Amino acid sequence: MGAERVAVTVGVARRKVHAMTTSEIPDSHKDLLGAQIAVLGTIGASGRPQLSAIWFLADGDTVKLSLNTARQKVKNLQASPGCSLLIFDPANPYRYLELRGDAEISPDPDYVFADQVGAKYGSDLRDRDKPGDVRVVVTIVPARVVAWG
Amino acid sequence: MGAERVAVTVGVARRKVHAMTTSEIPDSHKDLLGAQIAVLGTIGASGRPQLSAIWFLADGDTVKLSLNTARQKVKNLQASPGCSLLIFDPANPYRYLELRGDAEISPDPDYVFADQVGAKYGSDLRDRDKPGDVRVVVTIVPARVVAWG
Repeated sequence: MGAERVAVTVGVARRKVHAMTTSEIPDSHKDLLGAQIAVLGTIGASGRPQLSAIWFLADGDTVKLSLNTARQKVKNLQASPGCSLLIFDPANPYRYLELRGDAEISPDPDYVFADQVGAKYGSDLRDRDKPGDVRVVVTIVPARVVAWG
Repeated sequence: MGAERVAVTVGVARRKVHAMTTSEIPDSHKDLLGAQIAVLGTIGASGRPQLSAIWFLADGDTVKLSLNTARQKVKNLQASPGCSLLIFDPANPYRYLELRGDAEISPDPDYVFADQVGAKYGSDLRDRDKPGDVRVVVTIVPARVVAWG
């Protein structure tokens, strides 16, 4: 796995915070996969990064999103699949996980995956879509994982 | 200012959340400039976005960061100044501000700006640097502001 542990000083005053770069999500940070909100970074048409807060569902060592193709973030991923996802520990913003990888997009016409996400959040994702909207599963297979804190 | 208000459904179940796109930070979200932690998105050498949690200081309608040039995020900005910053309302992750723009990098050899950041966070940023490290001011002048919630 080639884990590389680097001590850097960031965050809370005078406290050393460790960043570990691996290709898999370390056991020390797997609890964050149950968090509610993540930040998704995509590349916009201008070439600049774009960030948004999103819902997600963990599936083993990948993270999956249910997105409506009308959203700019999906258009960005269709044009440029490179993306990054940051998940904070809700109790400690100096502890977080970053997953960098490429997005794989697959159709979800019957809301099979959308309903799994809806079950996590107590929501029916159909209520968020207009007639004719198309919902997809975006799977982020991490090429690089950075665990902070 | 050309504010464009778009109703989209995202976030809390069945609650409509409004996203407003402007070129300036709207009064409704200026309080978030006092938050502690933001997420910075840069473009990495691989072309993928990279995210990290950072300290920041607001200066009018711009946000400034004190960064050590040894950090990958600074190398990314030197190569590709396009960036984005997301600031959550710590009390409500469905309310946040995204600033998209380009980073302007200027030297801070005497830690004048670093000390202003340190005063916000109760920290001396010199303690985070090694001898010979170079600290810079990164100013994000937003080209586009998106206010959620």
